[in-house]
Amino acid sequence: MPRVRVHNCSVSLDGYGTGEGQSLEAPFGHAGTRLHEWFFPTRTFRGMQGEPGGSTGVDDAFASQWAPGVGTEIMGRNKFGPQRGPWIDEGWRGWWGDNPPFHSPVFVLSHHPRSPIEMAGGTTFHFLDATPDEALAVAREAANGLDVRIGGGPSTIRQFLAADLIDHLHVVVVPVLLGRGERLWDGFEELEARFDMESVTSPSGVTHLTCSRRPAPLHAVPDAPD
Amino acid sequence: MPRVRVHNCSVSLDGYGTGEGQSLEAPFGHAGTRLHEWFFPTRTFRGMQGEPGGSTGVDDAFASQWAPGVGTEIMGRNKFGPQRGPWIDEGWRGWWGDNPPFHSPVFVLSHHPRSPIEMAGGTTFHFLDATPDEALAVAREAANGLDVRIGGGPSTIRQFLAADLIDHLHVVVVPVLLGRGERLWDGFEELEARFDMESVTSPSGVTHLTCSRRPAPLHAVPDAPD
Repeated sequence: MPRVRVHNCSVSLDGYGTGEGQSLEAPFGHAGTRLHEWFFPTRTFRGMQGEPGGSTGVDDAFASQWAPGVGTEIMGRNKFGPQRGPWIDEGWRGWWGDNPPFHSPVFVLSHHPRSPIEMAGGTTFHFLDATPDEALAVAREAANGLDVRIGGGPSTIRQFLAADLIDHLHVVVVPVLLGRGERLWDGFEELEARFDMESVTSPSGVTHLTCSRRPAPLHAVPDAPD
Repeated sequence: MPRVRVHNCSVSLDGYGTGEGQSLEAPFGHAGTRLHEWFFPTRTFRGMQGEPGGSTGVDDAFASQWAPGVGTEIMGRNKFGPQRGPWIDEGWRGWWGDNPPFHSPVFVLSHHPRSPIEMAGGTTFHFLDATPDEALAVAREAANGLDVRIGGGPSTIRQFLAADLIDHLHVVVVPVLLGRGERLWDGFEELEARFDMESVTSPSGVTHLTCSRRPAPLHAVPDAPD
């Protein structure tokens, strides 16, 4: 059964997955690059940039899981770009240049329709006005038996968590305090009842947290007849 | 120079240091014992209860730091007991029985005056209507050259952090989500500028975080005269 996965979701110690004030110059608002400093040196991130080399330690062991086995991504509109409301500038094609690192269909959730954008390297951005359940059905179809990645940002992840659609959630707790922005965890009292949670710290100073959905309980075995 | 220390401050993944709805039956409100399950098996906790044995691994390595070198504790009134407002029931002598584990003077911050309570084993509860700075001056005097521990709860720790009076803060991040209660971290944007932060996970599943105040920068060395 294909899974629904979140990878490399960085949050501050105080739980913010992005800062305040996203703009073209500041995709993560006042957080700047602070949530992702652990990520930049990894072989995985460098590979996304088309650069060779990079670290292959603990951080990369987690970072590298984001692509294998994934057939498509769903992302929120705020991950795609800083515009809000109806699309005025249709020239915007995402933060990732001509050859984005996804190499798959990507479904961007937006209440405002827009034609798909085909990029180099196999990435096509589709725009979808849909609930998490509906979007996942579309993405599953497109993933062709592979897993679906929920790419963020925090509010998109929260919506899929709230709808109980996520099987695997990898969070990276970064030892900074942002004080403001968008929180990942709000509204998930007792999430631990649904997920097995494990943590490990990395020499870079971050803590990798995996939340793995518990298997459904086995059906009760009916009593044997007397 | 004596230090001001916080130990064993447990918070949920979503940052709550205590739950909602403290009462006589529920000192941590709806959190119940969830924030402290890591603590109960330790030799340190068992020792506080007058019981022998207990674990002596990673969790106890941190837990055991709470007492050595400490001359006195400052705690918030909500740590002392569930009453609010003027003292109506003066029979309340804390949650800790006749022989509390502090074995030192303890200063309870309260806007409502009350006579000191002398307990067995060297603990005396004093009640103090004071700012963090004033309380610390009193506690330092009583500590007689030893360190002062800020005992919590979260709002008391926040007040001392906000006044920049804490040298060492040990936080235990517990992999549960409480969803509501009292947050530890609110209002400390860029706390990492003041503290060196290190984390390590324990086999029990919690993450121990130490925040160690950075040494004051050395005075700039004046240029040598020509």
